[in-house]
Amino acid sequence: MRGLLIVVSGASGTGKGTVCKKLLSELPNVHYSISATTRQPRQGEVDGREYYFISEDEFKRWIADGKFLEYAEVYGNFYGTPLTKIEERLNRGEDVLLEIDVQGALNVKRKCPDGVYIFLLPPSLDELKCRIEGRGSETPDSLKRRLQAAVAEIQIGREYDYAVVNDTVDKAVAQIEAILVAERCRVARSADKSNLEVFK
Amino acid sequence: MRGLLIVVSGASGTGKGTVCKKLLSELPNVHYSISATTRQPRQGEVDGREYYFISEDEFKRWIADGKFLEYAEVYGNFYGTPLTKIEERLNRGEDVLLEIDVQGALNVKRKCPDGVYIFLLPPSLDELKCRIEGRGSETPDSLKRRLQAAVAEIQIGREYDYAVVNDTVDKAVAQIEAILVAERCRVARSADKSNLEVFK
Repeated sequence: MRGLLIVVSGASGTGKGTVCKKLLSELPNVHYSISATTRQPRQGEVDGREYYFISEDEFKRWIADGKFLEYAEVYGNFYGTPLTKIEERLNRGEDVLLEIDVQGALNVKRKCPDGVYIFLLPPSLDELKCRIEGRGSETPDSLKRRLQAAVAEIQIGREYDYAVVNDTVDKAVAQIEAILVAERCRVARSADKSNLEVFK
Repeated sequence: MRGLLIVVSGASGTGKGTVCKKLLSELPNVHYSISATTRQPRQGEVDGREYYFISEDEFKRWIADGKFLEYAEVYGNFYGTPLTKIEERLNRGEDVLLEIDVQGALNVKRKCPDGVYIFLLPPSLDELKCRIEGRGSETPDSLKRRLQAAVAEIQIGREYDYAVVNDTVDKAVAQIEAILVAERCRVARSADKSNLEVFK
């Protein structure tokens, strides 16, 4: 059976990093999709572990060859999700986890509608405000801007398949695990795993 | 949040009775839908527990009033799934389990597309044959007919949302429980449970 492409997004402050990390540690069949980037590796970063570090020329060749599921330029550096690496894993029956922003996710959804699109929600906007404030790095103005951005992102969340409230990390991870079990049982997917010829 | 309408079917011999019984015993929020029938109660059967026992006149009034989700006549007796009783439970946020045959399920699906349609599969046709033979009540001819009927039912299984292989009862029940968790996270359903006004 082909693996699942799992796309997880959430407004900043919803804790998607923590949730994805726990998910990866609990499910050995789920692999993090490694992005390609043109930026320089930082101390301790290893090519093929944190990122595929490639030159701008190579990055543009990858774009031309349709090797990216999606890519973006951020502060002069390119970042992209390599399609071929993901396809290799999916075809081996491994699941691939993409942790990307809502805009990237919507682009991926157009190309891979059979992925599993999960949006993490904060328990409430007040709670989200607390979490962002808790980082202590915001001015009143930047806090307001971040909250407005979060609200806009949450509204895009309606385009996803699933919404998981990140109340506690354990609960959110358990719900995502249940979603993956359920998705493997979907008729469209299970038809090719069933031993029953008549079911295909 | 409105409860889930859960419809479970499976070819005869797939063990759907055992699976549904275990599911009901494990999930207190899931309630078995009680059918209405015009047949006489048997020893020990209680009105409103095994069935709603009603007269043929009343049954036909219920049909005329659109009170049935689906109904059928079997050997001169009527059996029907009362819509109003189910709606009451769903509106209270309770889940309702319908264990019905494929034909009934497809009729229900047309009326209630937001239900959760789960089809139980045997691990293999050989295993199904063993299970039916194991009951010891079949002649070679009736066994052949039952297997042909099972194959036809399994093919209709493609119309369901989920297919669960009943390898072991515990595994099948766990997968159905995961499906119910996932369905509650579906954006279309979770929009009305979220505290986030902006998500609605």
